[in-house]
Amino acid sequence: MNRFLLLSVLGLSMLTSFGQDATTIRALYNESLRHGQSYELLHDLTKNIGARLPGSPAAASAVGWGRDVMTSWEFDSVWLQPVMVPRWVRGQAEVARIRLSKKRDSINVNVCALGLSTGTGPDGVRAHVLEVKSLDELKLLSSREVKGKIVFFNGPMDPAILTPFKAYENAVPQRVDGASTAARLGATGVVVRSMNPTIDDYPHTGAMRYADDAPRIPAVAISTRDAELLSKLLKEDKDLSFYFETHCENFGMVQSYNVIGQIKGGEYADQIIVVGGHLDSWDLAEGAHDDGTGSVQAMEAVRLIKAIGYRPRRTIRAVLFMAEESGVWGGKEYGRIAQQKNEKHLAAIESDQGGFSPRGFAMQGDEKNLALISGWKNLFAPYGITDFMKEEAGADIDPLKDQGTFLLGLYPDPQSYFDYHHTSQDTFDKVSRRELELGAAAMASMIYLIDYNGLK
Amino acid sequence: MNRFLLLSVLGLSMLTSFGQDATTIRALYNESLRHGQSYELLHDLTKNIGARLPGSPAAASAVGWGRDVMTSWEFDSVWLQPVMVPRWVRGQAEVARIRLSKKRDSINVNVCALGLSTGTGPDGVRAHVLEVKSLDELKLLSSREVKGKIVFFNGPMDPAILTPFKAYENAVPQRVDGASTAARLGATGVVVRSMNPTIDDYPHTGAMRYADDAPRIPAVAISTRDAELLSKLLKEDKDLSFYFETHCENFGMVQSYNVIGQIKGGEYADQIIVVGGHLDSWDLAEGAHDDGTGSVQAMEAVRLIKAIGYRPRRTIRAVLFMAEESGVWGGKEYGRIAQQKNEKHLAAIESDQGGFSPRGFAMQGDEKNLALISGWKNLFAPYGITDFMKEEAGADIDPLKDQGTFLLGLYPDPQSYFDYHHTSQDTFDKVSRRELELGAAAMASMIYLIDYNGLK
Repeated sequence: MNRFLLLSVLGLSMLTSFGQDATTIRALYNESLRHGQSYELLHDLTKNIGARLPGSPAAASAVGWGRDVMTSWEFDSVWLQPVMVPRWVRGQAEVARIRLSKKRDSINVNVCALGLSTGTGPDGVRAHVLEVKSLDELKLLSSREVKGKIVFFNGPMDPAILTPFKAYENAVPQRVDGASTAARLGATGVVVRSMNPTIDDYPHTGAMRYADDAPRIPAVAISTRDAELLSKLLKEDKDLSFYFETHCENFGMVQSYNVIGQIKGGEYADQIIVVGGHLDSWDLAEGAHDDGTGSVQAMEAVRLIKAIGYRPRRTIRAVLFMAEESGVWGGKEYGRIAQQKNEKHLAAIESDQGGFSPRGFAMQGDEKNLALISGWKNLFAPYGITDFMKEEAGADIDPLKDQGTFLLGLYPDPQSYFDYHHTSQDTFDKVSRRELELGAAAMASMIYLIDYNGLK
Repeated sequence: MNRFLLLSVLGLSMLTSFGQDATTIRALYNESLRHGQSYELLHDLTKNIGARLPGSPAAASAVGWGRDVMTSWEFDSVWLQPVMVPRWVRGQAEVARIRLSKKRDSINVNVCALGLSTGTGPDGVRAHVLEVKSLDELKLLSSREVKGKIVFFNGPMDPAILTPFKAYENAVPQRVDGASTAARLGATGVVVRSMNPTIDDYPHTGAMRYADDAPRIPAVAISTRDAELLSKLLKEDKDLSFYFETHCENFGMVQSYNVIGQIKGGEYADQIIVVGGHLDSWDLAEGAHDDGTGSVQAMEAVRLIKAIGYRPRRTIRAVLFMAEESGVWGGKEYGRIAQQKNEKHLAAIESDQGGFSPRGFAMQGDEKNLALISGWKNLFAPYGITDFMKEEAGADIDPLKDQGTFLLGLYPDPQSYFDYHHTSQDTFDKVSRRELELGAAAMASMIYLIDYNGLK
């Protein structure tokens, strides 16, 4: 065979493979955009079940719901994987106000308890306020300066950072570790600026954690607009006092479940490709973008593959992880069991950055597979999926990383995510049907490509 | 000078130019994201003025508002350019119902009069219904088949077409020319499926036009869900009748204005770069995405350039065009006057595809400038602006094309646009502050690059 003939045969075979892949991906998109189920599922989850705090009755309902959906779609097997999760309850609405030192009236401000925080109870906490911009700034102070005060962490998410998730990473340590850091210096409570690069009225909740070596003091998030107000008033009146009252409580660990459904591979059934989102949510709204969208997209991605009549070579498994928000409990347990059973997880794909218009995939794994998957760019380009980045793929699938699993995260347009994240605004009406469906199709397409072509 | 030295000098100068461009663009984005005015302006326009039908009192208020904004920002000159526009008024709310042939009760459905349609008046129109999928399908029929009927144009926007604007282009001729096409065959009215690829309850208005050679029959849009219902019922009962009642009226041409503000170029003041959006809107909501966002982004883009202290070499002109929706009256008049005055318009940039997360620019112009501008991709890539396409740039600036002006259109993510377009849902709360600000900064950056580097 001469060299030109060889090249043309190779070229033809590459073209044919590209052609089959392109045709299959087109079919997945057509099914999602013309006959997609994800939007109605999301409506059901958000409106009929609603907020799904780990360990809550609603979370238990969501577990049954996820199992029923995948059963009704005739996945080959559907089961619940037990996982213990912390049960935290917000209780009655929070109250907070600023009292100026020389005036008798006070100013109400918008706060919410941070997730897993201890409550103040009905007596609340009242103290003078010490404003800092970061954990590091606080650590430079002495306990004499902090003792008896409420520490106000007012480090903003920098709006000029183009990827809001980067700004979030910079600012979020205040929320997570602020209370213990302040408590070690004798503070009586902490108020944390909401994780949001814009100015609005919505307090953003989110997980905090108590260190073992520090007293457990209550913690609230304050809306960005009220954080700006408090900071301004402190400049004029450093002796003002702040009062807040929270009624949240921790009830220890309770039983819950990851929800798992799969279709079995025809050739390499022992090789598993996971697609997931987390089923739990915070309690201030309906957990639409965080992460109802990821949950329905995960199930829908597997349904799309079935619906177009594709027979997977490997086992495709949808996982609805439980209790991501309160510490990735479901993800960790899933990873532990996978290792215990010596399951071979080839790849895992998560959607947990909102149901917005998809732009690409975050990837974590070895260089040869990063190159392989980046080589599929041309297949995704017609669908506006153009960003293939080395970035953290998803909290729930992260525990699989050490087992050699290649990790991918759907990367939707990130710009409006923090308008809703962990607030009362994270509702169904903020989700666009098409954007949700495009994300499900993108995930299904990635599963197909990995399933059909394998990894290296 | 040896070849390597020459190359390194050229390389350095290119690097320096790239470096200055990158620094200026970064400053424009920082100003927009940290101190942007566009979002508050949009709030003012949508909430304090609201819907802005051409020729309406609210449109007149918007004209004064735009002039006042640019005056308060101390643009070098601000003026109103007279333009005659059609005055159309919707009147009281529309009514529509389906009556089955064998039942006495009727089913109410969601419709709205199409813009510029004549009204039925209080007696309404009642007739049997003839369903077609397109103008072409109707044209194959005889007047015997159409006479006395209501023609129901039920061609959907195909959801599987990835760019919704393409699906819109395919479907919209029914809306624009459906009434006259049907009237020539003796129809008494038309009902047009709303221009929306998803199924929902909102009728989408939009312009229609009457041909001179056909009777003027009334036209309404019906929500996609009710279009599906009507189509289903027609299959079961072809003798059902449809009734609709609209109270809209045309009041002829009235005086209005384009609003123009500019900063004068320091070196080539006779070369003009236009940045615009259209100030008018339909009347079912507040004209937020269509095109309040474009209007505020146009003014903001010029403000950003001033705010960072950049002194433009050419004249930068913001134009708020009037009466785009009812037939591009402001855009045509602007183009006519530009030609009459022999003004040299180097480039024009419009934002009229919603205030969503920007992804690129549509471009229309000669090949060498297409190549020049595409060569700036690396400057935009850090901001997620990656799509540079040969596409129609914008209706209002289109009349400048024949004068040799290079045209650009901001290209935001298009997927959710038709959730809101021309409906009661096009409200301020659907706009994300960051997405709006990123669009304004992208436009300002493009203006800067064209101003500083010139075109070929």
